[in-house]
Amino acid sequence: MTLEIQAIAFDAYGTLFDVYSVTALCDRKFPGRGVELSRLWRAKQLEYTWLRSLSGQYQDFWRVTDSALSFACRSLNLACPAQTREELMEFYLHLEIFSDVRPALAKLSRFELAILSNGTPRMLSAAVESARLNGVFTDLISADEVKIYKTSPRVYGLVPKHLGVPNSAVAFVSSNFWDIAGAKSFGFWTCWVNRSKLPEEELSVTPDVTVPTLDGLVETLEESTAK
Amino acid sequence: MTLEIQAIAFDAYGTLFDVYSVTALCDRKFPGRGVELSRLWRAKQLEYTWLRSLSGQYQDFWRVTDSALSFACRSLNLACPAQTREELMEFYLHLEIFSDVRPALAKLSRFELAILSNGTPRMLSAAVESARLNGVFTDLISADEVKIYKTSPRVYGLVPKHLGVPNSAVAFVSSNFWDIAGAKSFGFWTCWVNRSKLPEEELSVTPDVTVPTLDGLVETLEESTAK
Repeated sequence: MTLEIQAIAFDAYGTLFDVYSVTALCDRKFPGRGVELSRLWRAKQLEYTWLRSLSGQYQDFWRVTDSALSFACRSLNLACPAQTREELMEFYLHLEIFSDVRPALAKLSRFELAILSNGTPRMLSAAVESARLNGVFTDLISADEVKIYKTSPRVYGLVPKHLGVPNSAVAFVSSNFWDIAGAKSFGFWTCWVNRSKLPEEELSVTPDVTVPTLDGLVETLEESTAK
Repeated sequence: MTLEIQAIAFDAYGTLFDVYSVTALCDRKFPGRGVELSRLWRAKQLEYTWLRSLSGQYQDFWRVTDSALSFACRSLNLACPAQTREELMEFYLHLEIFSDVRPALAKLSRFELAILSNGTPRMLSAAVESARLNGVFTDLISADEVKIYKTSPRVYGLVPKHLGVPNSAVAFVSSNFWDIAGAKSFGFWTCWVNRSKLPEEELSVTPDVTVPTLDGLVETLEESTAK
C-alpha cells in the first residue's frame, strides 16, 4: 500500500513529552507517594478535559492541569504548599522527551511536522524550547484555539485548517489510544505508539498501525510512502 | 431559603442502584480479583461514555458497558468466557438498591420523581422492576433519546422537556460528582449524595447541598420547601 502522507501531527503529552518524568519530582516532594500522585494527577487531568468539553465548561489546559494536581493532592491527603504546587506545575513546561523522539523527527524531516495538543500555546512553546526542538515543527496547534478538547472533531479539524492539507494526507501519531480513536474517527491515518504495551481500548477503532516506539513509525513510513 | 422544587431527577447508577453490588459476583467468577475488576469495569464504562460523546461516536449504554467489561478483563489478564460475560452483564439488570433508597423515595412522594440516566430504556426498566420500584417514578428518562451521554447539556435538557417544569424547579440528585457538575452547570438545584466520603472534584462547581445518604436529601427538602 502506498500512503499519500504529506504531514504528520504528533500528540504532545505522553507521545513526545514524558508526562511521568514528573514522577521523580513528585517523589522528592512526597516521599514514597510519587508514582501514585503522578498517576492520579494525569488521570484527573484527562478526565477533566473530557467532562469540561462535554458540558461546555472549557477552561485552559494550564488551569485544568493545576486543578487536577490540586484534586490529586487532596484526594491522597498530601498537603501541598503553594510553592510545591508551583514547582510541580512549572515542571510541565520542561518535561523530558522520550529518547526515540529526536532521532525519529530527524528522519521524518521530509514531511511537514506539527504538534496537535490540548496544551496551551504557552505550554507547548515552552516544552518544545526546553527540549531543544525549535524549528522542527511547522506549527504547534493548540486545542485552546477552539476552546474544547480532544476527542472533539473540532480539535482534529485544526490540522487540515492549519497545514492546508486534506485529512487523508495527515498521519496522526499518539501514545494515547483514546486520542487515536478520536483522530481515526475524524479521518486521519493513525499510528498508535504503544510505549507501555497496553491492551487496545474497546472504542470500535483499530489504529492503522501500532508501534512500540517512534522508530516503528519511521520504518512504516519509509516502507509505505516509498517513491 | 425556600426552594421552588417541583420535580426530583435521580441519577440511577451509583445513586439508586449500587454498581458495586456486582463485585461479589465478579469475585466468585475471578477469585481475589473482584474488587479490581468491578472498579476498572466501572471506570472504563464512564470513560467510554465521555470519549464517545465527545467524538460523536455514540453507542448505547448496554454496548458501552459490555465493551468496558471486555476491556477490563483483557487488561487484567482475566479470561472471560462468553457465558461469564453474559452473567456479569445480566447482573446490570438486577443491581441492588442502596438501603436508604426505598424509605427516602416514600417520603418524597409529594414531588414528581424521575430517573435521568445514561442507561438504555431497557436497562432502566429492568433495574426498576427488579428493585420493586414500579410506580414510584413518573418517568425513566434515558440519554439514549439524544444519543449522547452526560455531561452533555442535551441530556439534562430532557428533564424539563419530559416533566414540563422549568430548570429552576428541578432538584437533581447524584452520587457522582461529575454528574452534579454537569447538572449544576445546566441550571438545576443539585444534591450530591457523597456515599463514599470522597473529596469534591475540581470542576469549578459546588453542589447546592452535599449529604451522606438520601436521608439528608429528605431532611433538606423538608426544611427548605416547607410551606
